[in-house]
Amino acid sequence: MTSDDVVRGLLDREAIVAVCVRYATALDSRDWPLLRTCFQPDVVGEYEGIGTLDGVDAIESVCRGALEPLDASQHLLGNHVVEVTGDDAVHSCQLHAQHVRAGAEGGDLYVVAGSYTDRLRRTPDGWRITHRRLAVTWTDGNPAVLQA
Amino acid sequence: MTSDDVVRGLLDREAIVAVCVRYATALDSRDWPLLRTCFQPDVVGEYEGIGTLDGVDAIESVCRGALEPLDASQHLLGNHVVEVTGDDAVHSCQLHAQHVRAGAEGGDLYVVAGSYTDRLRRTPDGWRITHRRLAVTWTDGNPAVLQA
Amino acid sequence: MTSDDVVRGLLDREAIVAVCVRYATALDSRDWPLLRTCFQPDVVGEYEGIGTLDGVDAIESVCRGALEPLDASQHLLGNHVVEVTGDDAVHSCQLHAQHVRAGAEGGDLYVVAGSYTDRLRRTPDGWRITHRRLAVTWTDGNPAVLQA
Repeated sequence: MTSDDVVRGLLDREAIVAVCVRYATALDSRDWPLLRTCFQPDVVGEYEGIGTLDGVDAIESVCRGALEPLDASQHLLGNHVVEVTGDDAVHSCQLHAQHVRAGAEGGDLYVVAGSYTDRLRRTPDGWRITHRRLAVTWTDGNPAVLQA
Repeated sequence: MTSDDVVRGLLDREAIVAVCVRYATALDSRDWPLLRTCFQPDVVGEYEGIGTLDGVDAIESVCRGALEPLDASQHLLGNHVVEVTGDDAVHSCQLHAQHVRAGAEGGDLYVVAGSYTDRLRRTPDGWRITHRRLAVTWTDGNPAVLQA
Repeated sequence: MTSDDVVRGLLDREAIVAVCVRYATALDSRDWPLLRTCFQPDVVGEYEGIGTLDGVDAIESVCRGALEPLDASQHLLGNHVVEVTGDDAVHSCQLHAQHVRAGAEGGDLYVVAGSYTDRLRRTPDGWRITHRRLAVTWTDGNPAVLQA
């Protein structure tokens, strides 16, 4: 590989991680227009415990429904793995998603932890997620926090 | 952009994340000289629940007061976002700060979770934080751990 | 430094973090052949609470013994620090290791949190860990989860 190809590879990796961090930022700041910039319009989401979500409207709707009733949330990410093949990429990471609703009967906190496994495509607007799978590894706290 | 500019951008990003990781390392190892290397002397800290801290002496003093009575602490970081403009930069990340004091009445652990939002400046000694805001998203465990 | 050296440094850093993330992936997916690709055969592990582990067979054996009885685990990493000197490197990171065993008496979850401090060597097969130290900072939940 020439050095330019290597540098492009590093930039791709950084840009792909940045999309996945932006998703977390969008959720935790309730910034739905920002959330949409993470996805291709025809994205498919397979969210464990929720089901299959067809298209960015469906993903936005489910996220709003889950998070808007809350006082706060925090999606902490780590363990990013990126593999790029031309204009396609796969990415995975681990997450701790904390959900906060003060006064919820049974406790204010509910954490859902697991992994995202993504496919992304390079577009004229940058890398976009075309497929996202959320797998849940463990939960802790009060599930009623999410059932407002 | 030429390739050299791109590479410089990647190095800047890495160096800025490294400063913020060094802050966590310094806190958790009680290495106060190391802590000071993260900041410009006239740094301003706005720490939710603590107040405005003017200058690196004030930040060191508050951190020492909070952490030296503890048996251990762990500041786990993720979701780093960096934007560089010339010799200035902004950075944000998410954190889980666990605090441990064995035998504290009500439990040994108290976690404070939230985000850092920083401004940094490029100096002859490397990137330094000039403004740091700590926002708290949620806490869990026994607050008395921090009230030794 | 020439630009090529700088780029090589960035690639080294990325490759070293990738080995440490691969270790976590291997543990949490119970992929023992993958686990072995993280280490030199004569690796030494010093795992707090477990002891000194001589060689990759010993590390695999201890990890299998701890994790195979579980329903799930999650090793979330952050705060990666990498320093490369020629063909040698040191790395450290912070971790939250969650262990899940449904129906364990006293609760399903046990988290062990701390740090890894590693030495690595560049080999024809890529970077490999030659020494790993696990230090435990705090634990929470039900220790019996790990005593199946």
